[in-house]
Amino acid sequence: MTGTVYLVGAGPGAPDLLTLRAANLLARAEIVFHDALVHPGTVALAAHAQTVAVGKRCGRHSTAQRFINKRLIDAAAKYAVVVRLKGGDPMLFGRAQEEIDALEAARVRYEVVPGVTAALAAAATLRTSLTQRGSVRAFAFATPRVGAGQDASAWVGAIRHADAGAIYMGRSEAGAIAASLIAAGLAASTPVAMVVDASLPTAETHYTTLDQLPKFAERQIHGAALLLIGPQFHARCAGAGAAPLDNPVFATRA
Amino acid sequence: MTGTVYLVGAGPGAPDLLTLRAANLLARAEIVFHDALVHPGTVALAAHAQTVAVGKRCGRHSTAQRFINKRLIDAAAKYAVVVRLKGGDPMLFGRAQEEIDALEAARVRYEVVPGVTAALAAAATLRTSLTQRGSVRAFAFATPRVGAGQDASAWVGAIRHADAGAIYMGRSEAGAIAASLIAAGLAASTPVAMVVDASLPTAETHYTTLDQLPKFAERQIHGAALLLIGPQFHARCAGAGAAPLDNPVFATRA
Repeated sequence: MTGTVYLVGAGPGAPDLLTLRAANLLARAEIVFHDALVHPGTVALAAHAQTVAVGKRCGRHSTAQRFINKRLIDAAAKYAVVVRLKGGDPMLFGRAQEEIDALEAARVRYEVVPGVTAALAAAATLRTSLTQRGSVRAFAFATPRVGAGQDASAWVGAIRHADAGAIYMGRSEAGAIAASLIAAGLAASTPVAMVVDASLPTAETHYTTLDQLPKFAERQIHGAALLLIGPQFHARCAGAGAAPLDNPVFATRA
Repeated sequence: MTGTVYLVGAGPGAPDLLTLRAANLLARAEIVFHDALVHPGTVALAAHAQTVAVGKRCGRHSTAQRFINKRLIDAAAKYAVVVRLKGGDPMLFGRAQEEIDALEAARVRYEVVPGVTAALAAAATLRTSLTQRGSVRAFAFATPRVGAGQDASAWVGAIRHADAGAIYMGRSEAGAIAASLIAAGLAASTPVAMVVDASLPTAETHYTTLDQLPKFAERQIHGAALLLIGPQFHARCAGAGAAPLDNPVFATRA
């Protein structure tokens, strides 16, 4: 057992929203196992590594988690620096615990490197803070995705009782999400923002209200979408703050 | 009006947990207004800038928000690249909205650059995922800090109804936090982890349960602390995964 497995957050999409630590590790990596949705420009930072795409792409074939665990363990026996690159942050909807548990059981050395999660990039895109001093002091992160035998509505209470919330991986269930939250007592007029491809040139922002949200489920929208629900997520005046499109720092932003 | 103000997340503490975009902006900045708690090594990345410490340090003198807003607007009239550097992410407990609103009112160009928030770094330190597939699908971020005339217990419901949660800026009120959550129905035996200075060499981890949490309020703990509350935050076996202290990539970690 010679190597270390680094569970690394790739950030929300734009390659320059990776951390310095993650970029350093990619540059040193001998092998990188990355989620299918990680930006090619981020994977390309692993200039000297073999790169392997593994799960998880919504609705398509993805590598089984148990098989990913085994590949990480096998790689650590062969390589000094093994990177497992996950979209966003590994510890929020990233299934990192299953890999951590497998690595610990196999007595493989590992480290976790945090990343910028999608909701924070969405807030930056919307120019709207997730928390608002004096009015939004509790913010929930949830997903409606459930496993076999689980209560489908357990996430509803968290969003209902927080001041605002983000729903990951919820676009395809937008109708059921809206119905559940309204049934739980949220106002039909509660603002909702949908951010697609936050931080990427393909980024889109849509504003609606909870009762109108099901209409979005009927639209053809491509890319990863995040739902932000709360009083602050209404359309704001663009003002003079619009980003310069020619700003080289933001070359990856729309 | 010639300049752009960048509201930049400095990340959780360790300078190498800054994003590439933020590091690029600091290198180009002419003036940087930073929170007092941002790591000196991060501020030092602004090699060519005038650096100005402004609020917010818990319990000490800090610059009034209105005065910070005015300084950002004034700086944008004088400099091309103005950076407002905030601990963690600007949009989660960062009071970014007040600065955004002031910049928009003054028609100053601005951008938000997201960062790694403290709870994600704490999860990496604990090697425990905030969400757990099948059991923890909703996670709340909250703070018990309240303004004048506000309901002190509004954050309680969010933590109570989520599967797990993080409490920012809550250490000094640990006793009241525990009492409120137990009164709201959380089990006295609910695991709690307190992470101090997540991602820094001075990082500390303490495990307890909700009913024992008040004892921590009596201890002398220095540094920024985060409370993580939920079934997954119990002490785990260190296993073989312990990070090598001599690993240069993690020179800033304990």
